Amino acid sequence: MTEQHVAYLLGLGDDALIYAQRLGEWLTHAPQIEEDMALGNVGLDLLGQARSLLTRAGEVEGATPLRDEDDLAMLRDEREFRNVQLVEQPRADFGHEMARMLWFATYQCELYSALLGSADETLAAIAAKAVKEVEYHRDHATQWVLRLGDGTGESHERMQQGLASVHPYVAELGEDHDAARWATDQGVGVLPSTLTEAVNGYVTQVLQQATLEMPDPPRWHARGGRDGVHSEVMGYLLAEMQHIHRSHPGATW
Amino acid sequence: MTEQHVAYLLGLGDDALIYAQRLGEWLTHAPQIEEDMALGNVGLDLLGQARSLLTRAGEVEGATPLRDEDDLAMLRDEREFRNVQLVEQPRADFGHEMARMLWFATYQCELYSALLGSADETLAAIAAKAVKEVEYHRDHATQWVLRLGDGTGESHERMQQGLASVHPYVAELGEDHDAARWATDQGVGVLPSTLTEAVNGYVTQVLQQATLEMPDPPRWHARGGRDGVHSEVMGYLLAEMQHIHRSHPGATW
Repeated sequence: MTEQHVAYLLGLGDDALIYAQRLGEWLTHAPQIEEDMALGNVGLDLLGQARSLLTRAGEVEGATPLRDEDDLAMLRDEREFRNVQLVEQPRADFGHEMARMLWFATYQCELYSALLGSADETLAAIAAKAVKEVEYHRDHATQWVLRLGDGTGESHERMQQGLASVHPYVAELGEDHDAARWATDQGVGVLPSTLTEAVNGYVTQVLQQATLEMPDPPRWHARGGRDGVHSEVMGYLLAEMQHIHRSHPGATW
Repeated sequence: MTEQHVAYLLGLGDDALIYAQRLGEWLTHAPQIEEDMALGNVGLDLLGQARSLLTRAGEVEGATPLRDEDDLAMLRDEREFRNVQLVEQPRADFGHEMARMLWFATYQCELYSALLGSADETLAAIAAKAVKEVEYHRDHATQWVLRLGDGTGESHERMQQGLASVHPYVAELGEDHDAARWATDQGVGVLPSTLTEAVNGYVTQVLQQATLEMPDPPRWHARGGRDGVHSEVMGYLLAEMQHIHRSHPGATW
């Protein structure tokens, strides 16, 4: 069941790759230069995780010739990407970005902690490095959510609005799928639904402290990203990301 | 002559800030994920240098209330920016970017080395940290210029083309201006023209080894950036960079 193993690794790697792309859009566009640098660093951490995870996916796949990180990042089509839809959503305001980061980094903290004991030893080693990075991302988002939620009337309002905007994309983080079921059976991965309680618990406690409210359950929520179902924006994101590489196949341009 | 001291520091800081903006545009758009990360790291180094230099400029200016790094980055108009025109030129292909980085990082290496003994002790400390960073940037660009220049027919051709595109913007790096003359008299700064021989020497030797030719002297060359004269693209760059900050004056958005 190599196929499921590869699909599982691609899910983790694509989340990191696509979110790095969205965070890169903040470089020199954040409200403060200090924050530009912080978001840039988070983006680079995620890009590093994506690199390792896609390289591992290529190894497990074992195609001839081997597909490397760049083949997997640059030469797949939209339906072959397995990231959750949360990370592909366009950059909006800073409150929206901190709401997204709070949810996503908290999810990644639980995920990589659980993967420390993976039977795929390469994945366990990737998780050991990544867990320290994503704890920093979670703390960074937490500090901002507290500062903005418990700040001025306007900052509170916009932070609440940011939470509402990302809410329809949160449930997908905890949705189980075939590759995760297989990976869990083999001791390689972890079932997303088993992370949900800890993730919700952490975010709930931050929002309380920030005097913010958890949004009501949304009427519609995103699903299917792990099986290649994406929102309309994903095509544009890939077009931009893959353009240079595809214009010069195999070249170092 | 506080005014000249501020102008000198702004020239250095604006070079780093505006080039960081252009490099940020490469995040997830380079030909390889590894190179995305490298360019992102160079951009973050430059952003850090810009932060320190603009903070120092604000201190020396001593306005009431003090203008901080964000005021200086986000609330000045085009004519108040003092960067050379080389760094504001739009992102083009990868050969162009490596040609720009080779020239600019080599210039910065000579500049910061000379500033280690500045009578402005804060500037000397900034230079001590920065010189290690820009040596890495210069080495990174050098490796790529060698690899592409001495690579395939196409990579050689495009690298040569990149060098030609940046050439009209190179001479400005060595052009003296009033703020630099004042800073040199005071032992605070260094006269740009005194760096030119070392910069040209380094680049010439790299191009020879890469089997590339130094372009002929251009008929037109850029000038006046240090006095606020910029190319048409600068207005668009600032509009994009300053938009979020200016939409929410004084806010942490």
